[in-house]
Amino acid sequence: MTQITKTEKDFLQLLREQSAYQEAINLAQWDARTKLPKKGASQRAEMVGFLSEKLHQLQTSEKIAYFIDALSDKTTDTVIRRSLEECKEVYERNKKIPHDEFKEYVTLQSKSEAVWQEAREKDDFALFQPYLEKLVAYNKRFADYWGYEDNIYDALLHHYEPGVTTKTLDNVFPKLKTALTELLKDIKTQDAEKDNILIHSFPKDKQRAFSIEILKKMGFNFDAGRLDDTVHPFAIGINKNDVRITTRYDEMDFRMAVFGIIHEGGHALYEQNISDALLHTPLASGTSMGIHESQSLFWEIFIARSKAFWEANYDLFQTYAPDYFNGISLSEFYEAVNQVKPSLIRIEADELTYSLHIMLRYELEKALLNDAIKVKDLPNIWNEKIHDYLGIVPKNNRDGVLQDIHWAGGDFGYFPSYSLGYMYAAQFEHAMKKQMNLEDVIRSGDFSPIMNWLKENIHQYGMMKKPMEILQDVTGEGLNPDYLVQHLRTKFLTM
Amino acid sequence: MTQITKTEKDFLQLLREQSAYQEAINLAQWDARTKLPKKGASQRAEMVGFLSEKLHQLQTSEKIAYFIDALSDKTTDTVIRRSLEECKEVYERNKKIPHDEFKEYVTLQSKSEAVWQEAREKDDFALFQPYLEKLVAYNKRFADYWGYEDNIYDALLHHYEPGVTTKTLDNVFPKLKTALTELLKDIKTQDAEKDNILIHSFPKDKQRAFSIEILKKMGFNFDAGRLDDTVHPFAIGINKNDVRITTRYDEMDFRMAVFGIIHEGGHALYEQNISDALLHTPLASGTSMGIHESQSLFWEIFIARSKAFWEANYDLFQTYAPDYFNGISLSEFYEAVNQVKPSLIRIEADELTYSLHIMLRYELEKALLNDAIKVKDLPNIWNEKIHDYLGIVPKNNRDGVLQDIHWAGGDFGYFPSYSLGYMYAAQFEHAMKKQMNLEDVIRSGDFSPIMNWLKENIHQYGMMKKPMEILQDVTGEGLNPDYLVQHLRTKFLTM
Repeated sequence: MTQITKTEKDFLQLLREQSAYQEAINLAQWDARTKLPKKGASQRAEMVGFLSEKLHQLQTSEKIAYFIDALSDKTTDTVIRRSLEECKEVYERNKKIPHDEFKEYVTLQSKSEAVWQEAREKDDFALFQPYLEKLVAYNKRFADYWGYEDNIYDALLHHYEPGVTTKTLDNVFPKLKTALTELLKDIKTQDAEKDNILIHSFPKDKQRAFSIEILKKMGFNFDAGRLDDTVHPFAIGINKNDVRITTRYDEMDFRMAVFGIIHEGGHALYEQNISDALLHTPLASGTSMGIHESQSLFWEIFIARSKAFWEANYDLFQTYAPDYFNGISLSEFYEAVNQVKPSLIRIEADELTYSLHIMLRYELEKALLNDAIKVKDLPNIWNEKIHDYLGIVPKNNRDGVLQDIHWAGGDFGYFPSYSLGYMYAAQFEHAMKKQMNLEDVIRSGDFSPIMNWLKENIHQYGMMKKPMEILQDVTGEGLNPDYLVQHLRTKFLTM
Repeated sequence: MTQITKTEKDFLQLLREQSAYQEAINLAQWDARTKLPKKGASQRAEMVGFLSEKLHQLQTSEKIAYFIDALSDKTTDTVIRRSLEECKEVYERNKKIPHDEFKEYVTLQSKSEAVWQEAREKDDFALFQPYLEKLVAYNKRFADYWGYEDNIYDALLHHYEPGVTTKTLDNVFPKLKTALTELLKDIKTQDAEKDNILIHSFPKDKQRAFSIEILKKMGFNFDAGRLDDTVHPFAIGINKNDVRITTRYDEMDFRMAVFGIIHEGGHALYEQNISDALLHTPLASGTSMGIHESQSLFWEIFIARSKAFWEANYDLFQTYAPDYFNGISLSEFYEAVNQVKPSLIRIEADELTYSLHIMLRYELEKALLNDAIKVKDLPNIWNEKIHDYLGIVPKNNRDGVLQDIHWAGGDFGYFPSYSLGYMYAAQFEHAMKKQMNLEDVIRSGDFSPIMNWLKENIHQYGMMKKPMEILQDVTGEGLNPDYLVQHLRTKFLTM
C-alpha cells in the first residue's frame, strides 16, 4: 500500500464517521422492521431522522468539499480515489437541490405513502392522483437540477443504475418483450394449476431449519449474519461482518420463506464478501440495485429453481417437510416450483412474466417524466398495457396501478433494476458456465466453487467497479437480454 | 404549561439531539448483547465509541455551557430547570478531568478488564494488582478534581447515588450488619440444602411462557418492550416506549430465569412508567442506581418471593412446570425459593446475606480510596472480612477478591447501590402497606394497585426528584435500615 498523506488520513477518518452513522441508521432500521415494540415506532423514526440528518450534513459539508477538491487529482490510492468520486456524486446530487425544496419533498413523500395506502384500501385512484402528480413534478424538477444528456428519465435511472440509460433499456426491452410474450404463448397450454400440490401445511420451524441448511451450503456465514422474521422481507448489511436476512413464513406455502430466504441470502453473500480493504468507506456495499438483484436472483432462480438443485436437495427437503411431500415425485415438485402463470401482481410473478411487469412500469415512468401521458390517465393505460403484455386485466386499481408503493415514495427509475438483475444474472451464469460445469457443481451439493466465483468476480469489488464495468469485466460484453431469453427457453420449453 | 422562550426552545432541541444519540447507543448496546453476530463485535465497538464521543461532545459543548449560563436562573419551567441542573452536573463532571487523563483512563479500563479476566481464570491476583493500583490512583485523582466535603469516597458515591455519603452509609451499615449476622445465626440451624428439591429439568420455553404471564400481571407492556436471551442479563430503556428485558435460562434451575425476569421486569416498569413530560430530556430515566435497584428488588424479593405470591400463582406455575413439581407442596416450594445460605459469590447470594457482601466491598473501597489499606493486601483482608461476615473463607481469589468485574472497570462507589436498593425497597413496602393490604392484593392476582402506587409515587418522576427526595416524599423519612431488618426477621423467623 502506498504511504498516505495527512490529508488522505483525515479524509479516511471522515469516511469512518460517515460509516458509523450509516451503520447506526441501518441497525435502527433493521430493528424497526424486526424487533421494535409497537409503541416505539414514532421515537424510532425521530432517531433515524436525526442520524440521517447528521450523515447528510457530513455528506454535504464544506469539509467533504475540501477533500474532494484537494485530493481528487492527487491521490494515488485507488480506494481513496473511488471514495472521492462517490463522495462527489453524493455531494453534488444533494447540493443541486435547494434545501427547502428537498424538505417539502420529504414531507410530500411520507404524506403520499399514507394517502396511497388509503387509496389502495378504498380502490380510489382519484385520492392518490394529486399526490402522484406532485411527486412526478418534483422528480422532473430534480432531474433538471441533476442534469442529463438525452432523456430526462436518465437522471433518475442514474441514481439506481449508473451507466444505464433509456437508450440502453429501449435497446433491450423490446427484444425481451417479444421473446417473453412468444415464449409465454408457447407454454400457455400447460396446466396452470400444477403448483396446487405444494399447498400444504409445513411448520414454520421446519421451513426455517431447512432454509438455514441451504443458507449454510450457499456459504452464508452465521458468525457474520443473522436470520429473523419480518413482515416485508429484506436483507441489510450493517457492515460486512454483520449482514442480516429477514423473511416471513406462510405455513401453507413453504415457497414464500424457502425461496425468499435463498433470495435474501444471495443479497447477503454479496455484502459479506466485499473486500476488507473497503471497510469504513462508502464503497463497502453492493455497487447498484441491479447488480445486487442479480445476486439474489442468481441464487433464487438460477440455482434454487434448477433441476440439479432439487436432485441434490430433495432428500434433505423431505427430512424437514411433512410426510405429505413424500407423495410428490421430484419431477412433479420441480415443475410445480417453476409454475409459469400470468398474474396481476408483480411481487407474485414467476421468473418468466416478472420482466413484463417491469417493462410496463418503465414505459409508464418514462412517459410520465417526458409528459407523454398524464397521471389521471394512468389507470386506463395500465390496464391496456397489462392486457397487451399478459393477456389479463385487473378488476380494480388495487390489483393494477395502485399495487406498488414505489411511486408513492417518489421512487421513479427504480423498477428497471429488477429486470436488469434478471438479465445480469443470466449473463453471469453464462460466464460462469464457461469455467465450470455448473449443473455438476450444483448436483454435488458443494456450492463453494459458485460462491468463490461470485466473490472473485463480483462481490469483493463492492462499489470499486460500476455496474457496467462489472458486467463487461465478467462477461466480456455489455447488457444483453439474449442469455435470459435463452435460459428461459431452454428451461420452459423442455419442461 | 408556561410559554417557553426561543432560548428554552433551542435548549430543548439540543436535549432532543442528546436523547437521539443516547437512544442509538442504547439500541446498539442491547443488540451487541443479544443479537450481534460474533464477527460484528469490533466494528460495533467502534460505532458505539463514535456515537458516545459525539454525545460527549454535545454534553461538554460551548453551546450547553451557554444554555446553562443563560437559562438556569431565568427559566420558570420545572422540567427545563431540572434538565439544566442535570446538564450542568454532567458538564462539570466531564470538564473537570483533563482530556488526556480521561483518555488514558479509558484505555486503562479496557486493558484492566481483559487482565482481570485472565487473572480470574488463572486465580492470579498479582497479575491484576498493578492495574488495580492504577485504577485506584486515577479514581483518587478524579475524586479530587470533582471535589467532596468530608470523605474522598463521597465524590465517587455521588455519581451513582447523589445525596448518599460515607456518613450516611457509616450510620446505617453497622446496624444492618449486626442485625443480619445475628439473624443469620438464629436461622443457621435450618436445613441448608432444602432448595435441592427445585433442581429439576424445566424446558426453557415453558420457563419463558410462565415468566411472560407474570410480567404481564406486573403490568409490563409488551407493546412498549421486549424480552430476549443474553449471557449476562440486564434491562435497558431505549426510551419509555421501548424498554427491553434480557435473561438467561438454566434448564435445571428455573430460578435463574423466573426470578431474573421478574427482577429485570421491575427495572423495566420504572422506565416504562416515566412521565411523558420528560421524553427527550436527560430526566427520562431512573433517578439513581439505588432507586432503580429498589424497583427490581421490590418485585423480585418483596412480591415474588412472598408466600402470598405463590399462594396466588403456584397453580399457574404448575401448568407450565413439568409434572415433577406436582410433588412439591406449596410450603416446601416457598421455603425452597427462600433458602438462606452463606455463600462466597455475591451474585448468587440470597436476600439476607446479599447486603453483607456489599458492606464488605464498601469497607474495602472506602479504605482503598483513603489509603487505609493497600491493593496488595486486598486478598488477605477480603478473606478475613468474609469470614467475619459470613463465617466462610474462599479457597481461592477467584471466589474471593477477583469475583466481580466492577473494580476492573474502575467502578468504585457503585456497590453500595445494591444494598441501598434493598433498604429503599423495604421502606417503600412499609409505606405501601399503610395504603393497602399488600398481602391481599398480591393474593388477589391483580397487581395493578401495586403498579399504580409505584408509578404514582416513584416511576413517573424519572430524574425530576433526587433519590433522597423520593425516599423522603414517599416514606416521610430518610434512609432507615430498620424496615429491611424487620422484613427479614418477620419472614425468616416465622418460616
